Amino acid sequence: MSSSKIPAEFQLIERIQAMLASAAAEKGVILGIGDDCAVLEGAEGKYLLVTTDMLIEDVHFSRAFSSLHEIGQKAMIVNISDIAAMGGEPRFAFISLAFPSSFSLEEFDQLWEGMIEVARRYSLLVLGGDTNASFPQLNDHGLVINITLIGEVQPSELISRQGAGEGDLILLTGQIGDSAAGLDLLTSRRFFAQAASGSKPEDICCYQQAVQRHRVPVVRLSESRIISRHHLATAMIDVSDGVATDLRHLLCPRLGGQREMGELGAILWPEKIPVSEAAAKVARMLGKEPLTYALCGGEDYELLFTATPDQAYKAKELIERQTLTSVSIIGEITEKVKGIHLIDGQGQIAPFLAAGFDHFKR
Amino acid sequence: MSSSKIPAEFQLIERIQAMLASAAAEKGVILGIGDDCAVLEGAEGKYLLVTTDMLIEDVHFSRAFSSLHEIGQKAMIVNISDIAAMGGEPRFAFISLAFPSSFSLEEFDQLWEGMIEVARRYSLLVLGGDTNASFPQLNDHGLVINITLIGEVQPSELISRQGAGEGDLILLTGQIGDSAAGLDLLTSRRFFAQAASGSKPEDICCYQQAVQRHRVPVVRLSESRIISRHHLATAMIDVSDGVATDLRHLLCPRLGGQREMGELGAILWPEKIPVSEAAAKVARMLGKEPLTYALCGGEDYELLFTATPDQAYKAKELIERQTLTSVSIIGEITEKVKGIHLIDGQGQIAPFLAAGFDHFKR
Repeated sequence: MSSSKIPAEFQLIERIQAMLASAAAEKGVILGIGDDCAVLEGAEGKYLLVTTDMLIEDVHFSRAFSSLHEIGQKAMIVNISDIAAMGGEPRFAFISLAFPSSFSLEEFDQLWEGMIEVARRYSLLVLGGDTNASFPQLNDHGLVINITLIGEVQPSELISRQGAGEGDLILLTGQIGDSAAGLDLLTSRRFFAQAASGSKPEDICCYQQAVQRHRVPVVRLSESRIISRHHLATAMIDVSDGVATDLRHLLCPRLGGQREMGELGAILWPEKIPVSEAAAKVARMLGKEPLTYALCGGEDYELLFTATPDQAYKAKELIERQTLTSVSIIGEITEKVKGIHLIDGQGQIAPFLAAGFDHFKR
Repeated sequence: MSSSKIPAEFQLIERIQAMLASAAAEKGVILGIGDDCAVLEGAEGKYLLVTTDMLIEDVHFSRAFSSLHEIGQKAMIVNISDIAAMGGEPRFAFISLAFPSSFSLEEFDQLWEGMIEVARRYSLLVLGGDTNASFPQLNDHGLVINITLIGEVQPSELISRQGAGEGDLILLTGQIGDSAAGLDLLTSRRFFAQAASGSKPEDICCYQQAVQRHRVPVVRLSESRIISRHHLATAMIDVSDGVATDLRHLLCPRLGGQREMGELGAILWPEKIPVSEAAAKVARMLGKEPLTYALCGGEDYELLFTATPDQAYKAKELIERQTLTSVSIIGEITEKVKGIHLIDGQGQIAPFLAAGFDHFKR
């Protein structure tokens, strides 16, 4: 029997989903595998949101690029972002760690303080965990972090990936591209040094912003709460794998949707996509396409959501007024085309082809 | 500043606990860090039990000693055992995996089938997960498994580590020592081969039993449910780190107990400790002390609990009748001595000194 290699992450998830398809119908389960969080019945009529995320050193983060304090912050933030993506609030965290043998108590404290700082900021309690020795072969660089987060949401305020419909507008909080641009800068240090030496101060500021946002992403929790409390979105996801990839999840609900997979399409308006100034500058310097950072970059942790046109403008207005975070209306959901399309200046529609971020390809 | 090495697991847990001491007083939290599971308010007046456990290849398991199917089974079982230790029933699992690059789809299926087989047996649903590439430096042997389990228990049936009192008897389900003896056999394959060639068939059977029990431990879920439904225990824990180490947790409740740390002691009756026949035979062959396997071995996943004398005999009778699992009364809780003591044939009491199993020393 020939031995097939482990497929890319999304295929593996589909394989697991197929094996677990019956789970969603069980007592106490509102939503099974396939969204940002699983949704369970909780106390006092609320729903519980549960998400888990494993981070491996030199796969998901690098101590060459980020301090342990930043790595701890980000590990917590990416999980909070999954709770925010469903309209909920984070409550409890369970942290498993594996340390390389060279890890010192000071290093532990830096990592831990980063996690706890974010937990405190969002009134999140660490209630359990597990500490372990990492792989004996890896004397250094063997850090593994797994965080399971439990959040809460009122049933009427839950927002899933399923629910977008023909004519809905597509919205995005904040600006995108920073994280991918920052990672590009970090991995091409030579360019960074060259560029920095000959760069204007405002450019250096932009580079630093991109790098910093890669190290410690934003958390759009207040924005998510406005959307969920006012029932403004028909579907929502956080941008972890790139707008293009994550938008596809809003077009192809995987479990128990009313419509067939891939029945919906999206048309994006390139000039409306909020590429950050920093990402644009980095792209110019490194000879890249700013829209690639923005649509395929990943790890922006902005909220991508769909809403009926009147709710869309209300969401934009409310969020911008209450949080000062900008909201962009970047396209619309359609049944006329399948998948994601871009519309150019002449009104021509062309399919968007580039693939998103995939942990197995990185 | 000198850099101190990461301390052994228990010290690290104490350090984390000290940082998180306030967590237990929060809304919705019944028990914070420091027991087998965290305890939260759940739906319909029930309590939720949450536990998380990370397993690292060649630290916690070895593919040289166990098949991937067995590794998957054990990963699920050790978490179910934490739920059983508090009197609850497992409901939902969240699995994070990191695979080495050489991992094949067939290998994934073997591991997954092991986990799902156990999940099905205990009506446990897998509701989420995360799949990742493991450390790039580890082409092989880089498997990481993290399981977070959510269980349920009626508030009146919850059993914590806190609650043992003077005069309580100490009870243990089943027999102990197999897992440590099995691991010893596996790590001393030369002895195993020699012994097997010159051994009687019944001895070989014993060796195989010990090895098998190391690979796939028992789950004492029915036994736990009898204890919790009938309110038979004052405190309970599962034997993961060795009876001696785990018993200490019942003497020194770490969080919010009514008594000072270490105020209680335990006297064990060596002749009552249910050392398995297999462990005794392996000890004889390898020139070891059977009681060391039994008290310091770890990974037996039997239930260790305390009960008032009349409840103790009732527990023994009910469990043995309803499950066919033997229950041994192995000692008593006392305030006369501190820590764990053994009483010898002449009635002399001597402190028990050997340390338990610790993941960082392994």
